[in-house]
Amino acid sequence: MDKRSAFFVSDSTGVTAETLGRSLLAHFDQIEFDTRVLRYIDSLERAEYAVNEINQVAAVSAYRPVVFETIIKPEIREKLAESNCFMVDVFSSYLAPLEQELQTESNFTVGRGHSVAHDAAYNSRINAVHYAIDNDDGRHASNYEKADVVLIGVSRSGKTPTSIYMALQYGLYVANYPLTDEDLNDMRLPRALQPYKSKLFGLNINAERLAAIRQERRPNSRYASLNCCEEEIRLAESLFARNRISSLNTTHLSIEEIAGRILAVSGITRRDQTEY
Amino acid sequence: MDKRSAFFVSDSTGVTAETLGRSLLAHFDQIEFDTRVLRYIDSLERAEYAVNEINQVAAVSAYRPVVFETIIKPEIREKLAESNCFMVDVFSSYLAPLEQELQTESNFTVGRGHSVAHDAAYNSRINAVHYAIDNDDGRHASNYEKADVVLIGVSRSGKTPTSIYMALQYGLYVANYPLTDEDLNDMRLPRALQPYKSKLFGLNINAERLAAIRQERRPNSRYASLNCCEEEIRLAESLFARNRISSLNTTHLSIEEIAGRILAVSGITRRDQTEY
Repeated sequence: MDKRSAFFVSDSTGVTAETLGRSLLAHFDQIEFDTRVLRYIDSLERAEYAVNEINQVAAVSAYRPVVFETIIKPEIREKLAESNCFMVDVFSSYLAPLEQELQTESNFTVGRGHSVAHDAAYNSRINAVHYAIDNDDGRHASNYEKADVVLIGVSRSGKTPTSIYMALQYGLYVANYPLTDEDLNDMRLPRALQPYKSKLFGLNINAERLAAIRQERRPNSRYASLNCCEEEIRLAESLFARNRISSLNTTHLSIEEIAGRILAVSGITRRDQTEY
Repeated sequence: MDKRSAFFVSDSTGVTAETLGRSLLAHFDQIEFDTRVLRYIDSLERAEYAVNEINQVAAVSAYRPVVFETIIKPEIREKLAESNCFMVDVFSSYLAPLEQELQTESNFTVGRGHSVAHDAAYNSRINAVHYAIDNDDGRHASNYEKADVVLIGVSRSGKTPTSIYMALQYGLYVANYPLTDEDLNDMRLPRALQPYKSKLFGLNINAERLAAIRQERRPNSRYASLNCCEEEIRLAESLFARNRISSLNTTHLSIEEIAGRILAVSGITRRDQTEY
């Protein structure tokens, strides 16, 4: 397998450069990439440092590195362009045409993308994260009036990371509630959930995958046995069907995909803006 | 203030289109944008639906909408381009030049950017999220051997959202520990933290901001009083200084920025790759 180097270079946190860059590189899965983030490249001295880092890698590689950069100041970008690399320049490719379309000049401030701290949308994201943690794993099950959605499913079906991700990314209030043996054997919705049926969303998973995840957590337990996993999953599925609760099999999905599909299926809108 | 519409259109979750799009739009803060995400536009029928949604908005607006799209299949992208919009086409601008540079064809699969579920890096992110929740707010303080970093600070200084974000985004094991009145008055590091001094990172915040946050949580309590906040912050600052613990004032920073600076200052590397 070929091996190449890639850098994500930013005058701020690097989130945009890295997200865009990784998403583009993922389309070249024949190639293995060594990646590195260079953050806060916001002065000529820092740019000099970045050029050295990139050139050092270039000097010992068969190919020049690929550099994804989101630097606003032209003089810093020009300095960076002196390095021996293939440069993908996010802002200058897009900002100029956008300025023309929007008939206005952009503010060439550094790191504006994530500097909008402490406005209403930001505060609601932070509150949503606290809500998700306070309502993780069935804690404070009395608090579901505030919830946008309550995820239910067997232990380790993906509820916790999905709740947290939806809070951070979309500012949504997402609680989660584990279906226990008792709930499943009763074949009834837990009492705490009954008033909030319209907010429930079920997560399920294939038995082999679930057993593997649980095995890592509690090796050789009944909890991790394939039998036990199969039984729990079957019962959870009937519970969802009987109560007409929308559900999703998470086996082959990343958290981003699980969250995207919950939004698409349930029609929940994010707190701070119109959302499909 | 001018008002414009923007769409983020994706054949998958929309994360890349939205991240890039918002980061670009943030540079035009004279304009207010109504934004909307159209996800899973992965067939000609879905593209038809998207075109209708965009055209309906265009029909009632003074300006055509701006559309950021990350659609791979050319026929879907072409269909989308029939809408009355200004289209920013992420992949086709970049994938072609990257193919040339990398001397290989990209896999034109749909939604590849976030489909890398369940590889080692993905699993470590999930485990990191569970770790952050299990070790939030000083719970299980015996578990810091595994931590990459332990955030400390007074209540509501930003520890919890930062821990969660670093877990999700970077796969890092981040615990957090609240400095209580007792800890602060003793002017000593809590016993549980002493063996892990090299992993500690302090968060602080301005008193007015802290009082406002606490006021929302427990109105008119001593906890939320400006006096109490000032005192706690002053003591926390001396505690950090006396123990030579790196620290950061979070008042004007978003979670993304706090995380970026912790990585830059501490030199922690992410679990799954080389990182600055």
